[in-house]
Amino acid sequence: MILDTVNSPKDIKGLSNAELCTLAEEIRHFLLQKMSIRGGHFGSNFGMVEATIALHYVFDSPEDKIVFDVSHQCYTHKILTGRKEAFIDPEKYSDVSGYTNPDESEHDLFNVGHTSTSVSLACGLAKARDLLGGTENVIAVIGDGSLSGGEAYEGLDFAHELNTNLIIVVNDNQMSIAENHGGLYQHLESLRNSDGKAENNIFKALGFAYSYVKNGNSIADLIAAFQRVKDCKSPAVVHICTKKGNGFAFAEQAKEDWHWRPPFYVETGDTRRHLTGENYDTIVCEYLIDKMKKDPSVATIAAAVPLTIGFTEEIRKSVGKQFMDVGIAEEHAIALTAGIARGGGKPVFATHSSFYQRAYDQISQELCINCLPATLLVRNASVWGMNDITHLGIFDIPLLSNIPNLIYLAPTNKQEYLAMLEWSIEQREHPVALRIPRNGVHNANYPVDTDYSQLNQFQVCRKGADVAIIALGDFFQLGEETADALKQLGIQSTLINPRFITGVDEQLLDELKTDHRLVITLEDGILSGGFGQKIAAYYGNAAVKVLNFGLKKEFIDRYDPAQVLLENRLTAGQIVEDVKAVLNQA
Amino acid sequence: MILDTVNSPKDIKGLSNAELCTLAEEIRHFLLQKMSIRGGHFGSNFGMVEATIALHYVFDSPEDKIVFDVSHQCYTHKILTGRKEAFIDPEKYSDVSGYTNPDESEHDLFNVGHTSTSVSLACGLAKARDLLGGTENVIAVIGDGSLSGGEAYEGLDFAHELNTNLIIVVNDNQMSIAENHGGLYQHLESLRNSDGKAENNIFKALGFAYSYVKNGNSIADLIAAFQRVKDCKSPAVVHICTKKGNGFAFAEQAKEDWHWRPPFYVETGDTRRHLTGENYDTIVCEYLIDKMKKDPSVATIAAAVPLTIGFTEEIRKSVGKQFMDVGIAEEHAIALTAGIARGGGKPVFATHSSFYQRAYDQISQELCINCLPATLLVRNASVWGMNDITHLGIFDIPLLSNIPNLIYLAPTNKQEYLAMLEWSIEQREHPVALRIPRNGVHNANYPVDTDYSQLNQFQVCRKGADVAIIALGDFFQLGEETADALKQLGIQSTLINPRFITGVDEQLLDELKTDHRLVITLEDGILSGGFGQKIAAYYGNAAVKVLNFGLKKEFIDRYDPAQVLLENRLTAGQIVEDVKAVLNQA
Repeated sequence: MILDTVNSPKDIKGLSNAELCTLAEEIRHFLLQKMSIRGGHFGSNFGMVEATIALHYVFDSPEDKIVFDVSHQCYTHKILTGRKEAFIDPEKYSDVSGYTNPDESEHDLFNVGHTSTSVSLACGLAKARDLLGGTENVIAVIGDGSLSGGEAYEGLDFAHELNTNLIIVVNDNQMSIAENHGGLYQHLESLRNSDGKAENNIFKALGFAYSYVKNGNSIADLIAAFQRVKDCKSPAVVHICTKKGNGFAFAEQAKEDWHWRPPFYVETGDTRRHLTGENYDTIVCEYLIDKMKKDPSVATIAAAVPLTIGFTEEIRKSVGKQFMDVGIAEEHAIALTAGIARGGGKPVFATHSSFYQRAYDQISQELCINCLPATLLVRNASVWGMNDITHLGIFDIPLLSNIPNLIYLAPTNKQEYLAMLEWSIEQREHPVALRIPRNGVHNANYPVDTDYSQLNQFQVCRKGADVAIIALGDFFQLGEETADALKQLGIQSTLINPRFITGVDEQLLDELKTDHRLVITLEDGILSGGFGQKIAAYYGNAAVKVLNFGLKKEFIDRYDPAQVLLENRLTAGQIVEDVKAVLNQA
Repeated sequence: MILDTVNSPKDIKGLSNAELCTLAEEIRHFLLQKMSIRGGHFGSNFGMVEATIALHYVFDSPEDKIVFDVSHQCYTHKILTGRKEAFIDPEKYSDVSGYTNPDESEHDLFNVGHTSTSVSLACGLAKARDLLGGTENVIAVIGDGSLSGGEAYEGLDFAHELNTNLIIVVNDNQMSIAENHGGLYQHLESLRNSDGKAENNIFKALGFAYSYVKNGNSIADLIAAFQRVKDCKSPAVVHICTKKGNGFAFAEQAKEDWHWRPPFYVETGDTRRHLTGENYDTIVCEYLIDKMKKDPSVATIAAAVPLTIGFTEEIRKSVGKQFMDVGIAEEHAIALTAGIARGGGKPVFATHSSFYQRAYDQISQELCINCLPATLLVRNASVWGMNDITHLGIFDIPLLSNIPNLIYLAPTNKQEYLAMLEWSIEQREHPVALRIPRNGVHNANYPVDTDYSQLNQFQVCRKGADVAIIALGDFFQLGEETADALKQLGIQSTLINPRFITGVDEQLLDELKTDHRLVITLEDGILSGGFGQKIAAYYGNAAVKVLNFGLKKEFIDRYDPAQVLLENRLTAGQIVEDVKAVLNQA
């Protein structure tokens, strides 16, 4: 096996084209094997095997610096740079992350996972090189899907300014996570249809030397193209056309389903895990389809992750122009949402907690200063959300809840979620965000309101004394568990569903003072800047003691949620211990 | 006077070209008069007089909807839409804001002030129109400077997708606030040099119909161009070339100085107010020039507002390639900064507090997950910062201080600012942000450290008992004043400069418990999600009482800082009253 001889990029420099092609087949074999067991970014990695081999054949990493956009296509890069065992040996599958990671290898420049950053990062590396007098090549590898993101464009615009070596490999596989959207993609199509010769070339417009590789899965063609730009003295774009999922028929055919794939059977492509029972993606999808049918002014907007609210390709087509996927463009998505609301429509935008980070300014300025009635659905906002360091869902409470005029609601169950959503869509006063529970679908066991226009009214679900538990969103069930455990000890606690993340119920908090010694807050996110600290501050001058339960402010990577909960004292047992300690001390 | 007859856009529809030109002169006269007294966005407004007249001549606002990007060019629009008295009558000068404002007029769609948002907002209006069955025109007016911002590009990319009436007027005056930067601007130059006929037209690449108006200060040419696109059925770009500051020689010549102009003498152009004494802009500029001379790896980066750290055009030229202005592109600026740090450089990026909102994700992901040593200077982060609702500097503490790995420092005086800056540039462990004081330049009256690598160590500046005052950043002097006032009452309080916004000094806070009944916190920003709430939460289970002093979570507009401080009980007198109330209650 050729791969046996490859332990660093140097080891492929002497190989023939035939050997490099064999190497590609060997790599694909192991990628298939690992991903069938562990899941992973299938399509992006299968498409980029040849290009990655060609990059390492032509350039001299780590002296030459290769930045992978999103880096969800870096598996071959990892295999070629000393980490092949993590793909060959099942016992070592967990040794590497799914993204580039400088802690793993000097060949990895950044820990990245959000899109559209590679060009700007590479500009920085090129600038540092020039300031320090280096001569290495700097290469950014960016997919066409990432090119819809504003940050990528800002980088492409600026690159010209540097007037120095900077090579942008545009990996055009005609897909974002879902299909691409926007005028750029019609343009890329015209470039593909003309072998790169179409007029109005956007890369040339921005000042790049431009070259085109029709077959981006041909190692020989890629090597030739990369050799032509190696050591160039001004920015160059190499536009390569690859096939997403190349080499595995199921993935080539169903590109969106195979962008990221859970473990699957190699023979059939079927996933090994099947979700059973209800989930909030399909619940909200069904609700929105019905709502849009009844009301033509309702619009649903996604930003490259429509599946996160259950909008499959089939559904997207069926709902027509009331659904929009703007591609990877969260800033635009929020401003578009604001515009629709201002124009009298009823927009609902949904994306992951982590991706809202791209749009803080637009939420604050376009939506909240203008106080426009729009609904934001915040997905995977939880310790049980995505657990890669770049996709954590534990920061959105400090991010969103401190913006004036925004109403951030935290439903605890299905009926409450749908009631809040219905209220949010129909009201015309506020921008509203909903933090979708992530701890499974629960049914309401208390009366659920339909009207949330009286802001910051917390709901008392069990009335007790001495100890009050304010349990936010999908930590409400943890609050119930804690209340039950306290009951075992003879403490009849008060259990409160705060519902509103963006304010405190001052009247209720004042009432609690009369017969409660201790108020505890539970939130599924970091404590710093969050919900519980507002309660603690409110009681700063009161006799009531306050304990905030939530997560430490830290980046965590590929963690076990149960372990993280334990470390942050977020099991009912630990909470009860801490409560007892305070009660005994008083 | 023709303006006498103009009270709404309808009133200009019957005017001849000569009359419209006279109207333009009359408007310029009043703009000059008002701005000479009150200051304002001079260059952008003087350049757009004719284009605004032509827009209102051709389109039918408010049925047709015009969105002004940044809206710092909307003065003529306000004059033509029923608000001329606010420009003619000095007593009514304050009746309108400097930006579009829906509270003032049905002709204003959004309250905006940040750049690059108009295309996306207009996309939303167009979408809502189509969903609701309307037929009006939707027009976005965007300057070339705003086109470097990623959000503008995301909107331009998406517009094609709508396949509907949407008119983008690109106002090309060859300037951002300072000169433009990036490949796009070379491209716009080639379009200007070819009367719009240059190849590789970026607007055509993105799917727009494109037309060019060489003289964007010719009302007749503009009317003809706008009439051609009126009621178009798919997105169109009208590229108009205007002269920034057109019609006032001083402004035409010194475009950057006259982008925004404080009150000035019409005869000489000299400003009426002259800053005297030291200010932090020149202090940090001098420091950075010297630092860059000594160390070629230090790089200073601005994003369209280089003057905010004193980098005038002359200085920018003198420091050469160690200085970069990336234009309006904050996301790119942070990723570039991250790349420079990763490549071994020592980057310092500076912009306004309000503009950091554009780059939360990049600060979190590119800088902080990667823990790269870079310095961010946060300007106008204060109640004394810019006081337009879109430019408030009171939200950066919750925005930045809850990001893991970031060290956010708050110097209280000149020596401490420079010491922290020097430490930050030289250390290689942390991304660091500095909150530049905004209450004048003070000198240190306590020993200033040179090393801040022991994180979260607060500094006790006066040791007392009973009451501790933790006074952050430029509220330190308010803390001193409060301590002095308490002393008058016989209370020897402890005065603490926390220095670190991103953490609490647990050891010191524990020590305070022994002989302090009350801890108060002072911060120059909103309390929600901020610094003081972390102290309150830390003491949640302690006998120590905590009072947080800072601003309410709300958007405020064109306010008097003294009044806002009073309303938030942030004078030393009010604070002492509140302290006494707690001490008496105990």
